[in-house]
Amino acid sequence: MSVSEPRVITSLTNDRIKAIRALEMRKERRETGLFVAEGASILVTARDAGHVPASLVYQAGSVSTPVAKSLVRWAIDVGADVLEVSEVVLAKLSSKDNPQAMLGVFRQRWAELPARASGDDCWLALEEVRDPGNLGTIIRTVDAVGAKGVILIGNACDPYSRESVRATMGSVFAVPMVKVSREAFLAWRAEWRGDVVGTHLDGREDFRRASYKGPVLLVMGSEGPGLSDSLTRACSKLVKIPMAGQLDSLNLAVATALTLYQIRGGALRV
Amino acid sequence: MSVSEPRVITSLTNDRIKAIRALEMRKERRETGLFVAEGASILVTARDAGHVPASLVYQAGSVSTPVAKSLVRWAIDVGADVLEVSEVVLAKLSSKDNPQAMLGVFRQRWAELPARASGDDCWLALEEVRDPGNLGTIIRTVDAVGAKGVILIGNACDPYSRESVRATMGSVFAVPMVKVSREAFLAWRAEWRGDVVGTHLDGREDFRRASYKGPVLLVMGSEGPGLSDSLTRACSKLVKIPMAGQLDSLNLAVATALTLYQIRGGALRV
Repeated sequence: MSVSEPRVITSLTNDRIKAIRALEMRKERRETGLFVAEGASILVTARDAGHVPASLVYQAGSVSTPVAKSLVRWAIDVGADVLEVSEVVLAKLSSKDNPQAMLGVFRQRWAELPARASGDDCWLALEEVRDPGNLGTIIRTVDAVGAKGVILIGNACDPYSRESVRATMGSVFAVPMVKVSREAFLAWRAEWRGDVVGTHLDGREDFRRASYKGPVLLVMGSEGPGLSDSLTRACSKLVKIPMAGQLDSLNLAVATALTLYQIRGGALRV
Repeated sequence: MSVSEPRVITSLTNDRIKAIRALEMRKERRETGLFVAEGASILVTARDAGHVPASLVYQAGSVSTPVAKSLVRWAIDVGADVLEVSEVVLAKLSSKDNPQAMLGVFRQRWAELPARASGDDCWLALEEVRDPGNLGTIIRTVDAVGAKGVILIGNACDPYSRESVRATMGSVFAVPMVKVSREAFLAWRAEWRGDVVGTHLDGREDFRRASYKGPVLLVMGSEGPGLSDSLTRACSKLVKIPMAGQLDSLNLAVATALTLYQIRGGALRV
């Protein structure tokens, strides 16, 4: 059969369906270098960002909108494995809480640590981020402020997990991501010319009043423990986000967004 | 048996265990007016905020820290149903992804729409918020900026769901919450003396440059569609959050936090 010719798959034991389902496991994503993105809107973002699907899966009879038709056309044109599947099969492949009629399998892309950063560049480094929803939301925010990319330090959750990809709303296709050990990060950081900013309870400066000397590298600690001592020492500037009452922390994606908007604010106009 | 005397429960068919498990369903939470909060840290927040558990459940042999001991003591003192359970039973009661050794069952509290708001009060209204993780994160942020409470308009997700409660990190016990129909909200809004602020793509004013006349009522639309026409018309001021590139939206919890920090910023000090 031709790989570019859709045919309806109704069996959950079909090998290609099983291979896609297996991508729910991080081990399988790591070994294959693939991941799943769900929903026409995210697929449009992937297309616009120049990504090409290895496979496109859609529910038989669901391709009625111009957008859906153009996505299937695109997948066929680029030689993707296009799979028309029954409702039952699609239900098994897609999320339980927000099922989509179409999904794509894509190749992961990983960037290298940038060799140099210019004046108003901003990079975000996350220490051992644990929650995939937070990570996806943060990738979306990095895109929204026009920062250059995300550096995942140490034992991070997977930005290519289903939950993270969905939370990025497609920005996973646009934002460069780097995976790095703590040691490699610290060695690379030593060459950074601008401010290395951390948010910290011990920070003296209000994050809204601090000045940020570009290029700025913002380092955020993980949910719960916050920045480790070694990464705190790697910062040139510790700032603090004020809070009312007894609270001493915000959600990581919220704290990251507040700080990124402060750092990148001068470059953003309505 | 005395309700204040712990005894180890090992059966998943125990009636009291079944009743707690049933609280995973929204219908059951609505009918009983109860909800579950997991983890010692959130339980400490509940205690400090003056809430009293109907039940406290902990894993047999797990009460070793002073905090855990003080929580069990507290629960016994206030006459809660204190249940010591086996590891298997606790595993069934607690979240899969971040299991805790202790949980409490509490009575939901709902507030009324405030009769009047004074000068620098800030209330947040959410239109048909759908994602419990977003809602919980927003409740936590409302607490962090010292806003007065959250108004849930229309068909909202449940702030007392497990996912929401966890995302609040305990702020669900501190922040007044109001549930209201769209019609009742609009009638009440007509009496609001200060600004009614909405974030909107059609907003002309940069949210960072707008002035906010207190008391401020911030109205945020739901994930995806944003503010409906009827609620947009109810706003006295539409502001916009600038974004880079092609993006036209942020995660709801992120957009809410950015705007709340702008509105409440003058009251917050590190």
